[in-house]
This record gives sequence, structure tokens and C-alpha cells, in this order.
Amino acid sequence: MAKQDRAIRTRKAILEAAAVVFDERGYEAAKLSDILALAHVTKGALYFHFDSKEDLAHAVLEAQVSVVPPAPPQPSKVQEFVDTGMVFVHRLTRDPVLSGSVRLTLDQGGHELDRSGPYREWTDINRRLLRAAKESGELLPHADPEELAGLFVGAYAGLNLMTHALEGHRSSMERWASALYRHVLPSVVVPAVLTALDLEPGRGARALGVEETEVPGTPGPGAGFR
Amino acid sequence: MAKQDRAIRTRKAILEAAAVVFDERGYEAAKLSDILALAHVTKGALYFHFDSKEDLAHAVLEAQVSVVPPAPPQPSKVQEFVDTGMVFVHRLTRDPVLSGSVRLTLDQGGHELDRSGPYREWTDINRRLLRAAKESGELLPHADPEELAGLFVGAYAGLNLMTHALEGHRSSMERWASALYRHVLPSVVVPAVLTALDLEPGRGARALGVEETEVPGTPGPGAGFR
Repeated sequence: MAKQDRAIRTRKAILEAAAVVFDERGYEAAKLSDILALAHVTKGALYFHFDSKEDLAHAVLEAQVSVVPPAPPQPSKVQEFVDTGMVFVHRLTRDPVLSGSVRLTLDQGGHELDRSGPYREWTDINRRLLRAAKESGELLPHADPEELAGLFVGAYAGLNLMTHALEGHRSSMERWASALYRHVLPSVVVPAVLTALDLEPGRGARALGVEETEVPGTPGPGAGFR
Repeated sequence: MAKQDRAIRTRKAILEAAAVVFDERGYEAAKLSDILALAHVTKGALYFHFDSKEDLAHAVLEAQVSVVPPAPPQPSKVQEFVDTGMVFVHRLTRDPVLSGSVRLTLDQGGHELDRSGPYREWTDINRRLLRAAKESGELLPHADPEELAGLFVGAYAGLNLMTHALEGHRSSMERWASALYRHVLPSVVVPAVLTALDLEPGRGARALGVEETEVPGTPGPGAGFR
């Protein structure tokens, strides 16, 4: 294995371990020593790739959008917009980096951490898809892509937080995301497009064309992945 | 002042100081010494009323619903449902106990803290109002008060969190709450009721019949109230 390959693998292992530890403990309580132990790397290796815990947290936050596979293009841009959210939810319970990154985004502690990145990036992605939907005549004239983009990002964040506070995990997010689309889209999508949309739970797996496997076990807080 | 009155005032002062400190620092970083200093009480007085920081945090969480004045009854139960949320938002930037309580609800750290209470209580209040709206024929036949109740609570939580992450305060919540009602209600409210609703920012103050004063200054994190 070339030196560079090894460095890339080490960086990835550290990032994944950090995401798991941040997900379990939150930013403030997360210890570098736990990340080192989980990643099986030395302190020197960690500091070769990351300057500090803060730097590591920002890297986990920055990875959020890139670890979610883009929804495949669809004839309906509204469906593609829905798929983007549904793929996110599908991956949320299956990708520890995504889960840890979302946990950090939703955290409020650790004031040195700038958590605005994922909110802005998801809003940008939503806005782009909703503008394309509007340009192709799929949205009603009064629909405002900018407002809708933020509304969905905010609502997603809170539904995530609520399911976690009430249930200790996020497996009912598919149902809530579906409810959100079913309730908001009728007010902004032209009826002929609306009736052809797939807004049902499981859409993330269907959009990606993968088997919808069981969500990995969802033990209580502190017992592994959340 | 009778002894009992003094005890009630002391308890209130401690609760308010705790809310301010939790709001600024979050649960984990909050120090009892800061709460004591802000409330101008002794450690003995605090421990007379509260067993621990956790106990104090639960008291702040429990106070959330009771510090929001109930929305006055309306001929339209949908309007009363909207008003309940709009009054919450109106008070959020004006009542430090409410602000601190919401901050604790949205926190994820401090696993010993049960944050589910406010989610459940607001969902109960929403469900009751939406059921009344359904019984009086204001909702479309497919509208599900249970699902809608949770959808609004979750969306509110996330819009709160997003505005705070992006702007450092919550003053744009009036606009987001308004956007949420405008986008969701058309899919569940009968048209004749829908057109008569007041969903605009400032509705909280109008429902309470109070002057809509300027929101108190919104300095950055750590510089006082958030």
C-alpha cells in the first residue's frame, strides 16, 4: 500500500471513530483518547491529520453532505427534491459518519463550533432543486423556493431531534419525513405532479434502488450507535 | 412578608437564574455557583428547594408550558391552535425562563436529563386543539390531529434550532412559524376557515391583545440572554 493510500485510510478511520464518539457523547464530553482507541491510531497520527478536537468536529460536520449519495435524477424535479431528503433519512440510521455529523449539527453546546455549515448546504441543495422544479412548471406560482428550502431543513432538524428525545433513536424519521411532504407539498406543487409523487416511507431505498434492509439495532443512549 | 411568600419568591428567583445560566451555557457547562450568584441566594437556600443541578433542570423543563400564557379562546379552533404556537414564539424572545427551558429541551448532551416532557406536553395541547377543530368541522376529513400535533412540535423545535445556529438568536422564528402554518394548513383546513385565519408574524401579540414591543437586544452567544 502506498504511503498516500495509507494516510487517506488513516484519516478516514479517525473521522469515522470521531463521528461515533461525537454521536454517543456530544462534542463537549467527547474525549480524544476514546477516538484514538476506537480508530486504533496513535496521538501522533491524529495530530498529523487534525489540529484539535474542534478541527475534527468541523471535518465531521463538513463530511455530512458528501456522505449522503445524491438522489438519482428524476423526470419530476419535485420527486428528486423529495428523494434527496428521503435518501438522507435512509442513510441516517445506516451511516455512523452521517449520524455523528447530524448529532453535532443539532448540538447547542461547545460555542466555538460553527454548526451553520450543514444547515446552509442542505438549504442550498433544496433551493437548487426547488428552483429547477419551479422553472419546469411543477410548482404553483406563489411557491417560494428560498422559503421552502429553509422550512424543510428546519423541520427536518426538529423532527430528528424530537424522535431522538422521545424514542432514543431516529427510526421513525421515515414516517415523519413522509408526513412533512404529504402536508406541505399540496400547498406548493401543481396537482398533476402531486398525484404522481412517491412520498411514502421507504422512498429513500427505492430512489437508490437498494433493498430496504432492517435498520441496525437501536439500543438506548450510550450503548453504541444512536 | 410571610415566611411562605419569601420561600416562593426565592424558589422563583433560583428558577429564573437557572434558566438564564442554562440558556447561556447549556446543561453540562452550567455551574451552580453562577446560578447562586445570579439569584443572590446561598447554597443552603438552593438545596432547600432543589436537590441537584439535574433537579433544577427538570424544574426549568417542567415550567415551559406554564410560563406561556394560554391563547384566548377563538370561534375558530384552528385559529386558537395557530395562536398557541404564535404566543409561544412571541414569548420566546421575551421570557428568560421560556428561552432557557427551550434551550434545555433542544439540548442533546447530559444523558441523565429527560427532555421528553415539553415535546409530549406541547403535542398534547396541539392534539386537543386539533381534535376540537376536527369535531367542529374545520378540518378536512383525512386530517389526523395526532400526526399534525407531532409534526408541528417537531418542526417548531428544528426551526428554533436552525435560526439559532444561523443567526445566534431566535428573532426570525415569527417568520418561520408563519411560513409553516401557511404551507401546512392548506392541506388540512377547509377552505372557508383557511381564508379567515391570521397566520402573519405578530399574531402572538395580536392574539394576546398586547403591544408588539421590540424584541430585547439579541447579542451573540455568551453575552447575556440568547
